[in-house]
Parts: sequence; structure tokens; C-alpha cells
Amino acid sequence: MVNIAVMGYGTVGSGVVEVINTNGDIINQRAGDDINIKYVLDLRDFPGDPVQEKIVHNVDEIINDPEIRIVVEVMGGIEPAYTFVKKCLEAGKSVVTSNKALVAKHGAELLSIARERELNFLFEASVGGGIPIIRALNSSLTADKIEEITGILNGTTNYMLSKMFYEGADYDEVLKEAQDNGFAERNPEADVEGYDACRKIAILSSLISGQQVDFEDIYTEGITKITKEDMLYAKELGMTIKLLASSKRHGDHLHAIVAPALLRKGHPLYSVDGVFNAVFVHGNVLGDAMFYGSGAGKLPTASAVVADVVDAAKHLHRNIMTMWKSEKLELLPIEDTVRTFLVRMSGNAEARRGEVEKLFGDVQIIQVDGLDGEFGFVTAEMTEGEYAQKAAEAEGILHMIRIEE
Amino acid sequence: MVNIAVMGYGTVGSGVVEVINTNGDIINQRAGDDINIKYVLDLRDFPGDPVQEKIVHNVDEIINDPEIRIVVEVMGGIEPAYTFVKKCLEAGKSVVTSNKALVAKHGAELLSIARERELNFLFEASVGGGIPIIRALNSSLTADKIEEITGILNGTTNYMLSKMFYEGADYDEVLKEAQDNGFAERNPEADVEGYDACRKIAILSSLISGQQVDFEDIYTEGITKITKEDMLYAKELGMTIKLLASSKRHGDHLHAIVAPALLRKGHPLYSVDGVFNAVFVHGNVLGDAMFYGSGAGKLPTASAVVADVVDAAKHLHRNIMTMWKSEKLELLPIEDTVRTFLVRMSGNAEARRGEVEKLFGDVQIIQVDGLDGEFGFVTAEMTEGEYAQKAAEAEGILHMIRIEE
Repeated sequence: MVNIAVMGYGTVGSGVVEVINTNGDIINQRAGDDINIKYVLDLRDFPGDPVQEKIVHNVDEIINDPEIRIVVEVMGGIEPAYTFVKKCLEAGKSVVTSNKALVAKHGAELLSIARERELNFLFEASVGGGIPIIRALNSSLTADKIEEITGILNGTTNYMLSKMFYEGADYDEVLKEAQDNGFAERNPEADVEGYDACRKIAILSSLISGQQVDFEDIYTEGITKITKEDMLYAKELGMTIKLLASSKRHGDHLHAIVAPALLRKGHPLYSVDGVFNAVFVHGNVLGDAMFYGSGAGKLPTASAVVADVVDAAKHLHRNIMTMWKSEKLELLPIEDTVRTFLVRMSGNAEARRGEVEKLFGDVQIIQVDGLDGEFGFVTAEMTEGEYAQKAAEAEGILHMIRIEE
Repeated sequence: MVNIAVMGYGTVGSGVVEVINTNGDIINQRAGDDINIKYVLDLRDFPGDPVQEKIVHNVDEIINDPEIRIVVEVMGGIEPAYTFVKKCLEAGKSVVTSNKALVAKHGAELLSIARERELNFLFEASVGGGIPIIRALNSSLTADKIEEITGILNGTTNYMLSKMFYEGADYDEVLKEAQDNGFAERNPEADVEGYDACRKIAILSSLISGQQVDFEDIYTEGITKITKEDMLYAKELGMTIKLLASSKRHGDHLHAIVAPALLRKGHPLYSVDGVFNAVFVHGNVLGDAMFYGSGAGKLPTASAVVADVVDAAKHLHRNIMTMWKSEKLELLPIEDTVRTFLVRMSGNAEARRGEVEKLFGDVQIIQVDGLDGEFGFVTAEMTEGEYAQKAAEAEGILHMIRIEE
């Protein structure tokens, strides 16, 4: 029997208990031993809930119990999660977490403690919920140099952008609806400003580069300025707009960014709609691959957590996770990255063509039916720095959206 | 150093050598040891090729060399591959293969020999080329009861059906073009009749059920009867037609089938076009997930083979693969499976409505612009047995295509 403790009895924590109860037989068979939840740590009591008898309020009960081999951390947030997880590892227990903030901030250190003690620190559920992207990078795509990883890593914003695209709704309207349906939080900042996606791409970037990528270094732009007019331009171009979190190799450098981007029909991420998440990977020998699934939700996330518990139980004395060095990776400055841009400009296209071409050279002018008094154009490839310089000289730019190759 | 031998220097075999040469540094780092190709087994010589000095013509040189720890079998076909692989395992070497025919036929036995000897028999590349679906089922989706696995597992037929759908081309035309482009073989039977997809879904079915699923037991229908008219009906219904290889749980039973099917827009497999493959999985707690990538091709397949070599090298004395029992699983007879059907019928819809409704009850009649003298209808849900009975009584049925829920 392998005794485990679950720290946090919120949505994911109760999902973990539910998954282990529902699929116990096959989980035990695959783990090669019976998984037993001995403790659930929470500040609250849950009278009437079968879990009540396992509830403990003090983490030391878990840390000091040598019977506990694996600890599941699903509390979220940096503290006290970080302190608890570190103590558990130091006490010889493997740790499984769904906590992206913790992994993005302290992953290198916690992985290294686990490695030194022949334990495991696993975090499949921290990126893409039920999508097994971490394990794919760790143990499947091992013959490849990963040259690009681009994901739709936030379900709330993808739900909102899908609604805006298909129904022509505007941002505020869609946000309100998403909040009413429980797809967005009352304080939606972490999602709509891209902070959630940013932490996730930081984790993936650290994994593929083998070095710590600080999320604070990643240029991050949310979807709050995306309008229904932008979606009309996207349609005119045969594209859609997605919040992409992306990490690409340029020589020895990595370039990471979170921002809304125009995506062409035919790109594997184009048709990822609603609350679903997906991760596109390009390997130098594998070519293109894509992983798709529920990026959040109680049971999909719990499924990933429990799969990590199974792996930890199968490898109680053997470290299986690739680690990354705590030495920080310098990202390519955003000014030096190259791409094309869709620019929306006020005024009459014909009247202003000369002005535009003087700054941006030969461009493709886009006129959307029903949008009077403005026009759009797609620039040639240039660096973000060049674009910023030109944009500063131009007058009447309404909005700029990056185009994903 | 871990010495390996590659059996077969054809497309995949030369790809394996190329991948190890190209990405040697990162591969060795991930394997935790240097991977060295000591022998390449082939009947031919390759004068001038750097591999020539490693060429051996007799498998015994590999089997009898205790330095060889891992053997890569990429010859294809059942014999002599089966005899060679079995001897290698019995001689204490782990085996990695891309050979779907071998795995579908002898997987249970070879897995069991590997398990007894604490070796590994790995076959990621046998299904879906570069898509890491085997490892996902083996070590990622371990918290789930897999209730459905449905794949587009053959690139040739998917390329052809995509062309027919988007360009309105007919079967013969598209087959010829695919042959001219090298996407289809001169003798295309294994692809277009569904035999290739059938072996792959047999492997996936064995993995998710834990028992041998014989590919001979799987109802298999190819794409040779799909016409451009069928595609027009698909478009009228807002659907497309894909060759689906599918395995679904019904209570204790598994129902497996390979057949062209109508697939609704919005299904994750709908937009998988061209030579790409994809596997859709539904788990009882995970929900929907999808894996997408190059299903064939020299380098993507070699990438999967080499990832297995890395895993075998990391686990030289530890069996890591779930096995399935050689005891055969009885599939649900096709007659008892339930679905809806698109039926194309000759004649005038209004004139024949009574006749159709007498047999099939209330149906949705579909009339396609430009297709005179015929009409279509979608049946209610019924078993294949019921459908066959009704179809035998009906006159003038031009074609029937199953609809995927």
C-alpha cells in the first residue's frame, strides 16, 4: 500500500479524491500497488463528507508521518505551498502538484531537491490540465530538438475569443456572459491579462531549454483590447484570433511571448475552440505535433494529478523527471523578434495609401464591409523594434495585432 | 556507452541513423549514456555510405554479441522479423520496433517475454508514426478508464479523402495523383482497404483492454467506394468523410471498426487533413483529448523509434510497458452496434418518401443541388443488424455511410 496525502480540499483536491474513488481498481493495477489517501489537509472541516475522518489541519502531521510516500499539493498560490512542498521533499516524500505559480517560480529548486533525494516532483496538471504535455516533453519527444512550442493555454480567454469570433459579440458582453456561466472569475485579470498563460509557457520554456525561464521576462499582452472589429478583419484574412503563448528557438536564444495573434486556417490550433486547450510542438525531426484536451476543470485536472501519483508510486526510489538548471535563461528581447503585423488605421485607405507606404513600404490594404472610416493593412516582415518605430511616426493607428506564421 | 543494432536499412532504418547522427548530443543527454550504433543488419551492402562499416548480413552477429543491449527492428513484415525479435529478447536485449504487423500479431507474446526478463519491447512508432499515443496510454492516461479511442491512422487515405472533400475530385483521380506524388503505393491495397488502419486500431484496442484483440476480428471497410457524390452529401450535412479506426467500450465489451464515416464539424478529428494522423481519446475522468502529428514519413517515424531507444536505454533492467494478456478479447459483434446511417437512394424523394418511411420511420430527407435522380436520408439510431435487414428490403440503395456520433 502506498499512503498519500492531499493538501487542499478545493476543486482540484476533491476531484483527486473522486478520481481515486471512481477508478481505484485500474489505478491500483497500473500503479502496481494500492493507493490510499491517508490525510487531506485543509483549514476547514467537512462534516458529513466521507473525507472528514482524514482531514488534518496541521501540515506537520503529514510531514512527520513516515508512512506518507507521496504528497499531492493542490492548494494553489506560492505560500504556504512552497514551504510545505519543500518540507515534504526534504522529509523524503515525492510531491505531485497542479500549481503553475509554484512550478514557474520554484520549479528548478524543487526539481533539484527531488533529484538529490531520488524522489519525484511532478506537475503534469500545472500546464494544460488534462493534456499530457509535460510527460510528452519529458519522455516522448526525447529524440528531438524542440524548436517551437505554442499553446492555447487558457480556457477562459479561448472561450471568450471563440464567442467573439463566431457570434460577433464584443469583449465586455462576452466577459459578462463567461462570468455568469462560471467560465470566468469575477476578478478575471489573471486570465484576460494573460498572466495564467504566461506562467504556463514559462514552465514549458524551462523544460525545453533546460534552464530557468522567469515568467517576469516574458512579454505578456492580454485580450482586453480585442474587439469585434478585430474579428471582422481576421475573417477577412481567413484567420482567427487566439491568445497564444509561444516559445521559439532562434539560434541559441529562446523567444517567448504571450499575446493575441492572428492564426491562419489550416494551423493545427485554428480550430481549437471554447474552453479547450491545445499545445502545438515543432521538433526538428518529428515535425509538427499537437496535443488537445480540457485545459482545466475539476476532473480533467484531477486525472492529470492522479496519473502523476501513479507514476510517483511506480518510481518511489527513482527520479524520472528531466530537470532544468536554476541558472536563468536570457530570452531574445522582444524588440529583436521578427514577424508581420495587422495594423488598423483610421481614415480613408486611398487617401492615406501614400502615407502608409512611405512608412511601411508596399502593403496589402484590407477593407472590411461595414467598417467605414478605417482600413487595415498587413506589414512585411520586420522586427518588433522596427514596427514600434514606424508606429510611433504614423498617425491614427487604431490597433495592431501580431500575425502568427 | 549503450550499443544498439538496427535491423533493416530501409526508409525508417536510415531515418533512425540520421536522427541519432543529427541529435546525438541531446539524445545521449536524455538517455543518460552514449547511444552507439554498432551494427546495421541488411541483406544489401551500402558502399560509400558511412554506415557500410557497420553492415552485417547475419542476425546471429547481433544476437551473439553481449555488448548489444537494444535492437531496433525496422524491417517490417511478420517474418523474419518475428523470429529475429524473439531471439533478441531471449538473448537479453530490449527491442524497439515500428512494425505494426508484428505487434498486432505477436505483441502479447513479445511483451510477456520482455516482462519475464526485465527487458522492454517498445513500439511507439507502430501506430501514428511520430504521435506519442502509445506512451500516452501507457504512462499518461493512467488515471482513466479509456472509453473510446478513434483515430485517423492512415495518411494515404486521409490525403485522398481531403482532396476529394476540398477539390471535389473523384476516387480514381485522387488515387492516381497520390501515387504520382509518392503518397500512395503502386499497390495501394493495404492503405485504401483499411488493412493498415485495422492493425493499428487492433494494437490500441489491446492496450486499452489489456487483452489480445485480433485484427482479423475487426470489421474493416476501406475507402474505395467513396465518391465525390458522397462528399457532396457530407457538405450538405455540414460534415466531412474520414476513414476512422475506432474502438469503443460498451459495458464489458469493446466494439472495434475501421470504416469511412461522416464526421461533424466541431469534432476534434474534423480538421485533420492531408497526410496527418490524429488519435482522439475519451477517458471517463479526463474527458476528450486528441493527439495530432505526422503519421508516417522517414524522420517522424524515426523520431518515435529513437525516443523508444532513449526510454529503453534509461530502463535497461526495468520493464516499463503495460502488457496485454494473450487471451483473446471477444469484440461486440458488428450487428449489435448502434449508430445512425446516411443512405443514398435512387429516384425521386417525394415519390419514394412513403416507401422509405415505411421501412425507416421518420427520416430527414437530403437533396443535393446538381444530383438529380437520387436523394439521401439520415436514419434514426439502430443496430447494424437492423439496418442490414431494412436495407435488404429496400430497393435502389446507392450507398450507405455510417455517421460518427
